[in-house]
Amino acid sequence: MTQTNRRFVLASRPSGAPREDNFRLETVPVPDLAPGQILVRHHYLSLDPYMRGRMNEQRSYTAPQPLDEVMIGGTVGEVIATQSDKFAVGDHVFCMGGWQDYSVHAGDAPGLRKIDTSRIAMSAYLGAVGMPGVTAWYGLNAICEPKPGETVAVSAASGAVGSMVGQLAKARGCRAVGIAGGKDKCDYVVRELGFDACVDYKAAGEPRQLQAMLREATPKGIDGYFENVGGAVLDAAMMRMNAFGRIAVCGMIAGYNGEPIPMAFPQLILAQRLKVQGFIVGEQPGVWPKALAELAAGVAGGSLKYRETVAQGLEATPGAFLGLLKGQNFGKQVVKLV
Amino acid sequence: MTQTNRRFVLASRPSGAPREDNFRLETVPVPDLAPGQILVRHHYLSLDPYMRGRMNEQRSYTAPQPLDEVMIGGTVGEVIATQSDKFAVGDHVFCMGGWQDYSVHAGDAPGLRKIDTSRIAMSAYLGAVGMPGVTAWYGLNAICEPKPGETVAVSAASGAVGSMVGQLAKARGCRAVGIAGGKDKCDYVVRELGFDACVDYKAAGEPRQLQAMLREATPKGIDGYFENVGGAVLDAAMMRMNAFGRIAVCGMIAGYNGEPIPMAFPQLILAQRLKVQGFIVGEQPGVWPKALAELAAGVAGGSLKYRETVAQGLEATPGAFLGLLKGQNFGKQVVKLV
Repeated sequence: MTQTNRRFVLASRPSGAPREDNFRLETVPVPDLAPGQILVRHHYLSLDPYMRGRMNEQRSYTAPQPLDEVMIGGTVGEVIATQSDKFAVGDHVFCMGGWQDYSVHAGDAPGLRKIDTSRIAMSAYLGAVGMPGVTAWYGLNAICEPKPGETVAVSAASGAVGSMVGQLAKARGCRAVGIAGGKDKCDYVVRELGFDACVDYKAAGEPRQLQAMLREATPKGIDGYFENVGGAVLDAAMMRMNAFGRIAVCGMIAGYNGEPIPMAFPQLILAQRLKVQGFIVGEQPGVWPKALAELAAGVAGGSLKYRETVAQGLEATPGAFLGLLKGQNFGKQVVKLV
Repeated sequence: MTQTNRRFVLASRPSGAPREDNFRLETVPVPDLAPGQILVRHHYLSLDPYMRGRMNEQRSYTAPQPLDEVMIGGTVGEVIATQSDKFAVGDHVFCMGGWQDYSVHAGDAPGLRKIDTSRIAMSAYLGAVGMPGVTAWYGLNAICEPKPGETVAVSAASGAVGSMVGQLAKARGCRAVGIAGGKDKCDYVVRELGFDACVDYKAAGEPRQLQAMLREATPKGIDGYFENVGGAVLDAAMMRMNAFGRIAVCGMIAGYNGEPIPMAFPQLILAQRLKVQGFIVGEQPGVWPKALAELAAGVAGGSLKYRETVAQGLEATPGAFLGLLKGQNFGKQVVKLV
């Protein structure tokens, strides 16, 4: 019996903010397996800001998402058929399955790996114990290089990446300060995640007010800053950087739809001898095993907390993605299929 | 017989561009030497862009130049009296003597050192074999980290720092590309200093034209960029940066009088995974001996070339400094006193 697979393909490229009609739902048969392949039924899809960049035509650090092909993305699920001696039916796996119900992979496909769901929820492998967690781990340790007693700040602090940055910084003996949008997110960041302070950028009417709020939250300045947002938030953080501060540039979501996001005071890079460095965690394969081991231990043991926004059903995927780009999610955004 | 010393003190702080009346010429007696001290007669004063920052009230990476005190600066000259067993009359020395005819130093004063003028002109110790040369050496090697076959670009390419950056990059097997103001400077950079190309930013009517000229001069992109200027020049360079490029931020003279110099496209830091790092060479004492040894060997042997603009007489100092800030000098700006 041939199974039916529903999938979202990229139908058109957005100009400015993406819309739901940039995606098209298709129904296609699940292909038969060739030798060495496995069939995975997705339980959860991951939605991440980087997908916005892939929707553009121009080449960035990777090739663009091709039109009329299934939207890329990380997925977790269960092996339901196998022609590979590396995987058994019933195995739980992470794979780059994309926005669809099922995906077929060679047993040695890049990124494909078994996951242990006995102590960690399957969906966490898309967030705290997955790419976002490793992103936080790498940017913090390799670029922000926090030392005990220093102050680490992070924007989008309640998100999948930011929430891990602050918790890992706390574990390294730092003062952790978040920047997030809205009182609920800030309260969560401080009360649940244990950050020392969190600044609500939506409560700041204008840049000077944001700067004043951040000054109050960082009385000893900022030594390591982890950037997910850009624009006025980055400007405010830069004005608080101490001498020899380090800024890890992980994302600049404020400019993902083509908005100008100039850096107001680049002369601070000189005056404070800052290091500002961009990175893509997929280019750092060497750190993944160590990072994942620490993240898994923290999540399993309860010392690393995370929160998810769960959209229900494949049809909800485009809407959930557009909400993510507007900051409507709270914590890691996933789509539950099963 | 008491000698007379003429000196320039900072009379007032500039708002916007400095003027000659920000400085005041005074005549004072040369003090008697205490035990351990030496008296140096200055032959040359150094003029450098960093002095502009010291004229401001607000603290930057160092304390401001105090009002009514002699303007700071590097000097070279001859020991004409000594109460120190480390120095003899007739020794040639580098010292932080400031804008004046004479200076008194403890024999162990920071920065004070003998210089060998048998194979290297005394004034070169203010430029190619001094702070500017070490600045070039450090920013290039420690931050730009050039590899053979890569492209290194530098702004203010005919200046004391930029001229060394390109020549050192060539010696390391790189393509060296300069950015300078005016045809004469660009011709000098290519024909005399041996850069592979030089872009005349003054010949570009608008940013897009500068970008096009730089694109032509850097067909394989830029891997290491050494910034002395900021503003539109930095924007154009950033648009040519290759993946994993390194930008050493040494100066942003375009903004030294308070002009806004926003960085137009900070998202390139992420898209190209750039490292952008500011530095102050005085904070890197460990590199000076090695850097000075290489620079001295290159200058003495003729492989490292430099050019000077020499103002005549102490009275010319403020005017020469204002000219330096406007790019009116060609190569290292010094003032000849003897």
